Amino acid sequence: MVQQRRGEETRSRILEAAVECFAQHGYDRAGVAEICHRAGVTKGGFYHHFPGKQALFLELMGRWLARLDAQLASAQAEVDTFPDKLVRMAGMASQVFREASGQLPMFLEFWTRAAREPEVWQATIAPYRRYRAFFRGMVEAGVAEGTLRSVDPDLAAQVIVSLAVGLVLQGVLDPDGADWGQVTRESIQMLLEGLRKCADET
Amino acid sequence: MVQQRRGEETRSRILEAAVECFAQHGYDRAGVAEICHRAGVTKGGFYHHFPGKQALFLELMGRWLARLDAQLASAQAEVDTFPDKLVRMAGMASQVFREASGQLPMFLEFWTRAAREPEVWQATIAPYRRYRAFFRGMVEAGVAEGTLRSVDPDLAAQVIVSLAVGLVLQGVLDPDGADWGQVTRESIQMLLEGLRKCADET
Repeated sequence: MVQQRRGEETRSRILEAAVECFAQHGYDRAGVAEICHRAGVTKGGFYHHFPGKQALFLELMGRWLARLDAQLASAQAEVDTFPDKLVRMAGMASQVFREASGQLPMFLEFWTRAAREPEVWQATIAPYRRYRAFFRGMVEAGVAEGTLRSVDPDLAAQVIVSLAVGLVLQGVLDPDGADWGQVTRESIQMLLEGLRKCADET
Repeated sequence: MVQQRRGEETRSRILEAAVECFAQHGYDRAGVAEICHRAGVTKGGFYHHFPGKQALFLELMGRWLARLDAQLASAQAEVDTFPDKLVRMAGMASQVFREASGQLPMFLEFWTRAAREPEVWQATIAPYRRYRAFFRGMVEAGVAEGTLRSVDPDLAAQVIVSLAVGLVLQGVLDPDGADWGQVTRESIQMLLEGLRKCADET
């Protein structure tokens, strides 16, 4: 038991050190040696937990996406209608940008690699297709409950995802260009006004 | 005169060779030696035209943006109202995606660098702020001409730019995930429906 707990602590220390190294030097330039040094583990200890730097990155990405999923689920749980849910999700944007602060350029670097290497693509881009399906389901429910016009759910989901992706990329590339959390809330609000069923529609 | 024309031909050959090398190997791995080899010029010839690989990339990026600007201007010129202009611009998306095909992953790589290096940021990200001003002007004209609801022009411009950026990034990362030209046209159409002044509004 003690050994297992120690193993988990080491694993967490390696992950934390990796976040710092990736943020500081970028994925390509961050070395396993420096990650080990910061985490205070030997190379043997490192390779006991992770086959390499890529596996480490994929676990970080997976944990980040799992947190995002949990946030999206909790935003869904507490309110009833599609517009209220979407507004709550947009309201989380500031927190998401804050948590991702310093890490997003690293994702950008990895996406670059994903554009060339099929195995990286599979692990980093394929999951995002889930979000389109997730929002399609939400839009379908919104049309069914009568809060949305009878829009094409797949297209509306695509617009929501594209807008979110665009806001994230701008937040990465131009962090000082706007208060991206606020811009996200207001942009989603504007999009919603276009999707919402007007009072005089039947 | 002959010498000047030859100089321009050499410059063009270097730029074409660079596009091929960047697309094939990525910006970081593409070497000046290989670009020279493909272009059939000596290193001396190369450095006569460009101080280095970065200058070459920035010229390619500048030419691409200049073509995009020309396309946006021509879309503006031929129709009258904001909705028609925006629909025409969205209609160009397939062509833009086609022309950028194979080159966009290279931009992604350069954006990654822009997130870390201020001088690259200045040359690659700063110009995109122009597009926000460009669309703000268009939205203001649309509100003035009465085709749009009285939306906040800056926010509407931000939404248009974010949606476009998101579509481009998805087109880069998931080229087979959709017909991105068509998705762009339909997404802009959906956004427009929300911005458009309804018949019964005054």
